[in-house]
Amino acid sequence: MHRTRVRIVEDALDANNTIARANRDDFDRHEVAVINLMSAPGAGKTTLLERALAEPLPDVRVGVLEGDVQGSYDSDRIAGLHVPVAQLNTDPGYGGECHLDANMVRSALPSLPLGEIDLLVIENVGNLVCPAEFRVGEDVRAMVCSITEGEDKPLKYPLMFRSCELVVINKLDLLPHLDVDLDRLLYNLDAVNPGVQRVLVSARTGEGVEEFRRWLVETAPTGARAVV
Amino acid sequence: MHRTRVRIVEDALDANNTIARANRDDFDRHEVAVINLMSAPGAGKTTLLERALAEPLPDVRVGVLEGDVQGSYDSDRIAGLHVPVAQLNTDPGYGGECHLDANMVRSALPSLPLGEIDLLVIENVGNLVCPAEFRVGEDVRAMVCSITEGEDKPLKYPLMFRSCELVVINKLDLLPHLDVDLDRLLYNLDAVNPGVQRVLVSARTGEGVEEFRRWLVETAPTGARAVV
Repeated sequence: MHRTRVRIVEDALDANNTIARANRDDFDRHEVAVINLMSAPGAGKTTLLERALAEPLPDVRVGVLEGDVQGSYDSDRIAGLHVPVAQLNTDPGYGGECHLDANMVRSALPSLPLGEIDLLVIENVGNLVCPAEFRVGEDVRAMVCSITEGEDKPLKYPLMFRSCELVVINKLDLLPHLDVDLDRLLYNLDAVNPGVQRVLVSARTGEGVEEFRRWLVETAPTGARAVV
Repeated sequence: MHRTRVRIVEDALDANNTIARANRDDFDRHEVAVINLMSAPGAGKTTLLERALAEPLPDVRVGVLEGDVQGSYDSDRIAGLHVPVAQLNTDPGYGGECHLDANMVRSALPSLPLGEIDLLVIENVGNLVCPAEFRVGEDVRAMVCSITEGEDKPLKYPLMFRSCELVVINKLDLLPHLDVDLDRLLYNLDAVNPGVQRVLVSARTGEGVEEFRRWLVETAPTGARAVV
């Protein structure tokens, strides 16, 4: 019974990876670098993007794909920045799917002006488990971890923290008002993903956001930057 | 393709419900009331339980079942309260399951002294989507929503907020340090689950926790309380 289940899951992931590769081919053809941005609900992904994209990135044209169970709250916020944005809802699945998969992202590609952007940020559904299991065609994975969630999250959700090339620690402005030990959080992060790049920010005050912007620019394809 | 997927999901939920009913029968036979406690990662479920169970509840003997992807961090914390606790890990699933299901809970029943408790709190995996889709044999569902997650969460994860009999709004002590509008959060909650019972707490300072303790006592079976 358990073996059958694992087999079904592996088959589903194989099918997902095939579609993810097709997405990746489309992104490559348009010379678009793609970031899969993940976090727990309310960790501040959208607020971080609002802050980071309030001013255009130097020589990098950004687009955003918003993934949510329901509604267009996040894409409405991003649209105010005059950045191309598309909304993907996962609620046709029973009760809503808890993650984006490659096929959902594929269905959104016609809504995105791939020929007019260099960098696509895909904001995944807020969840620290399944989004890490489904590649969607991204080049890199980044996650936002709010310090309000406590020091133990890397240990409790290791696959998520391990699968990312960048970990953004957010809501630093709240540190004086919490019992959370930031050093312990970073120690736990290092235990599951040794040496992973990290940026400490407060999307609310803007602290550290410039460093995140630099990472976005570095992630965009060099070719695209040279052309612009 | 989509229809097949929905069908498979419905079959899985039917199978889950059958096992959930078997769990419920076992709980009823032992006159144990069961709470399925859910939230996003880091919303404060364990800290709330630590606070609420630091002193025994009047005439109600409590047990706790901790659900996590990996590790026994939460059950170690609860064990310090001298409350019977069992830990369930979901990581035998690929990358870890993002929710408890009825079969997982069933596998943990032999570890729980059902004959010696009146109330079982099942702390689910931190996730605002799938835990709401899988009943595990509980009598009631409660969730913890941290105000740090923002006002929009009821609108973005409606099934979770709608499926609960109690919503605990936590981390109230942080309100002065946030841009979050508490009235707006409560308004959004009322939009998806009109009139749902709610308790405002700070598990950190203890504010409101007595009201949560009273709700726990009221949820326990009257029969059990009369006997003790």
